[in-house]
Amino acid sequence: MATRMAMEDMVEACADIDAAGYWSVECWGGATYDACIRYLNEDPWKRLRTFRELLPNSKLQMLLRGQNLLGYRHYEDDVVDRFVDKSAENGMDVFRVFDALNDPRNMARAMAAVKKSGKHAQGTICYTMSPLHTTEGYIKLAGQLLDMGAQSLALKDMAALLQPQPAYDIVRGIKETYGEDVQINVHCHATTGVTLVSLMKAIEAGADVVDTAISSMSLGPGHNPTESLVAMLEGTPYTTNLDGERLGRIRDHFAGVRPKYIAFESATLVDTDIFSSQIPGGMLSNMESQLKQQGAGDRIREVMEEVPLVKADAGHPPLVTPSSQIVGTQAVFNVLMGKYKVMTGEFADLMLGYYGECIGPRNPEVVALAQAQAKKEPITVRPADLLPPEWDSLVTDATALEGNDGTDEDVLTYAMFPGVAPGFFKARADGPKNVGKTAAQMQADQDAASSAAKAVRGPIKYNVTMGGRENIVTVEMV
Amino acid sequence: MATRMAMEDMVEACADIDAAGYWSVECWGGATYDACIRYLNEDPWKRLRTFRELLPNSKLQMLLRGQNLLGYRHYEDDVVDRFVDKSAENGMDVFRVFDALNDPRNMARAMAAVKKSGKHAQGTICYTMSPLHTTEGYIKLAGQLLDMGAQSLALKDMAALLQPQPAYDIVRGIKETYGEDVQINVHCHATTGVTLVSLMKAIEAGADVVDTAISSMSLGPGHNPTESLVAMLEGTPYTTNLDGERLGRIRDHFAGVRPKYIAFESATLVDTDIFSSQIPGGMLSNMESQLKQQGAGDRIREVMEEVPLVKADAGHPPLVTPSSQIVGTQAVFNVLMGKYKVMTGEFADLMLGYYGECIGPRNPEVVALAQAQAKKEPITVRPADLLPPEWDSLVTDATALEGNDGTDEDVLTYAMFPGVAPGFFKARADGPKNVGKTAAQMQADQDAASSAAKAVRGPIKYNVTMGGRENIVTVEMV
Repeated sequence: MATRMAMEDMVEACADIDAAGYWSVECWGGATYDACIRYLNEDPWKRLRTFRELLPNSKLQMLLRGQNLLGYRHYEDDVVDRFVDKSAENGMDVFRVFDALNDPRNMARAMAAVKKSGKHAQGTICYTMSPLHTTEGYIKLAGQLLDMGAQSLALKDMAALLQPQPAYDIVRGIKETYGEDVQINVHCHATTGVTLVSLMKAIEAGADVVDTAISSMSLGPGHNPTESLVAMLEGTPYTTNLDGERLGRIRDHFAGVRPKYIAFESATLVDTDIFSSQIPGGMLSNMESQLKQQGAGDRIREVMEEVPLVKADAGHPPLVTPSSQIVGTQAVFNVLMGKYKVMTGEFADLMLGYYGECIGPRNPEVVALAQAQAKKEPITVRPADLLPPEWDSLVTDATALEGNDGTDEDVLTYAMFPGVAPGFFKARADGPKNVGKTAAQMQADQDAASSAAKAVRGPIKYNVTMGGRENIVTVEMV
Repeated sequence: MATRMAMEDMVEACADIDAAGYWSVECWGGATYDACIRYLNEDPWKRLRTFRELLPNSKLQMLLRGQNLLGYRHYEDDVVDRFVDKSAENGMDVFRVFDALNDPRNMARAMAAVKKSGKHAQGTICYTMSPLHTTEGYIKLAGQLLDMGAQSLALKDMAALLQPQPAYDIVRGIKETYGEDVQINVHCHATTGVTLVSLMKAIEAGADVVDTAISSMSLGPGHNPTESLVAMLEGTPYTTNLDGERLGRIRDHFAGVRPKYIAFESATLVDTDIFSSQIPGGMLSNMESQLKQQGAGDRIREVMEEVPLVKADAGHPPLVTPSSQIVGTQAVFNVLMGKYKVMTGEFADLMLGYYGECIGPRNPEVVALAQAQAKKEPITVRPADLLPPEWDSLVTDATALEGNDGTDEDVLTYAMFPGVAPGFFKARADGPKNVGKTAAQMQADQDAASSAAKAVRGPIKYNVTMGGRENIVTVEMV
């Protein structure tokens, strides 16, 4: 739903959101930028400026994937600086900077840029579970982020794995190690049904800010309900000071909007399997569809057993975008073609350090295989250190596109989504989609889009290194 | 859904439920008995015996409305004794005995009968919020239940109003006052989204047993998910020792069953309005439909403001069946016809003590009005003390019905549901409904039933005392 909701469906709630008493309003970044140009024909920069105007008293907040910005590769530092500057200039206040591998080097440049812009740099710990992830390790990472100048810390639990006791222990440990004044924001999804309790324990341990969603947009893979959190704290030494009447109106607004997007509702309300499988729901369905497309839908159990082994070989990366796709696809390949017989280019890069460092050592045998197959040396430096300057060529390429408006913002849009931006620039003048539509129209659009996707889907292509050469391997259903 | 699920849809999960490690399995009583004969054409006693057979290692548990048994009026003591005896004989182990007004006198006879049968008598505190309900008051009530011989206590939060801090305070207070050995079971619905946290705090305070539902049947107006509770406690000093594999199979079973009953899904996922309005969701929709039927749908706000006033006049009864209906209907009457100008017979009875004692004093002016309108004296004795013996006449009436099988069980079915039992006895031989049906068939049945109900709905009848005479007042839509 977050990737389909039209700006017009949020505008009316803004006055109440602005005055309800939130610490910040996360309203941009993450996957929404991609969604704006891919599905909504909305200019994401214009959306940011609109929020700035409609929420004059609020701190606007975004999620930023460190050196990846909002794209899916590492960018050279100058691009990072320019993206942060433009975001600040257009109205962003709080930058929650994270890296999928928890490698501080991938967050450093973005954090420095945020501080230089005078905005709030929030350093992020991605929470996951593995034999190597310990409370002490998370406390140590918090220290590294503070050393890098983080003005606050986020404990980010994207898979709803943060149980109450570790939530308490990590927050308390950080406070006791670095001082009670260190601001800690706790961000838990609700998927496993347990994380409102984790927020309670985090608050008892001293957490300063926690993330919620208004009740009519809450639960499932989303967040815990704001109003329930308010009720949770009544009678305790903690309080939210939120305006209940405004919360009620925000709730009613989105309760009215939600039915329009029913085609994008998640079927998952509670899922605790992830505690044992370590496989987030989205990753599982991706792997299932990969297997089915190769006529091997019955081998999902084998793949599920393979995932933790591949994850361990890679040094236990948290499984989030993009590491979840990289590990999941390699697990599928291992089951279908034999253990590491065929390696994806991305997995070889992960094994050779091109995404950064994980918490654990990588399996040296698999590193050697990756080195041999990819004909690349392993690296230990910060991946972006190897990138040549790219801004000027991005400007050249972007400005050559039909419909480009000549701004740095458009260059950044092209930089992050070179496949999608050309179409968006061309169609931008048509204005936003998903405006004034009924649920039935939204459903019909979605059905049409997915049958179009099926119709054009040929053999699936993988970028694979095999016998030392990089190949595009195509796999066809038979 | 609880009132429509066919026995056949539960049978396959029983082996796993029996061995999963639950303290008890609540599987009978409450509204299910009524539902068996009203909607399912299943003999509730046969259902109980089937559960006994399929769950040989489990304690079977039921909810019993004290002197009301599973019906909607007070029964004479002999009927109470016989119902408890027959339930025990057919396999029931744990009787959770409650009274809507928290009047211990309405629970005493049932509790004594349970103890005499050698089964487990659990005394129940219905949790509600009012200016008069205090932690100290609940602790005192716990003592009264223990004095009556309760072998354990239930803290029953049917409206999901129990917030974490009072949950902690009440459980801790009971333990500190009456000893750490007093067993406390905490029962919270999930409606307000906050009660899994309340269970956590109750456990920290020493609660021994908490109630949950398997995740695929959890949340909304139901209970918190079992698997989330298990995850919640990992790493804490508390543990559940439940068998995760069996929980997974129970979940999968009911995930498969649930779509069949989609016509009976609740639209409510989270609702925190009840904290301020004190009006449970079911009660609100009842009042709305009463108002609409009288062409006054626009006056719901006035009625919502009237409810707390009527509740206060009555001495702050918890709002559960039947007190929620009695208070809600009187609030509607007050708005439509003037304050206490017309009183329902039930409300007059409530004001005159015929349902028992509430926590607070009743408004003497309204008592006087009730006395004048109903031409009845207020009472202070236990209501059932005024009832003449009724078993023999129940036997006579029940055995005269076509299809009656001559057992005491059938007499009890007739005693509790004299309007429904005759039809059930006659149709019983046809066997269970809702067996082998698809979701579409279930939906079609439901649509047919509700349009039939609309078709036969004439003017609405109320039992009203007016100017001292008891009348049936009929109200027609215009």
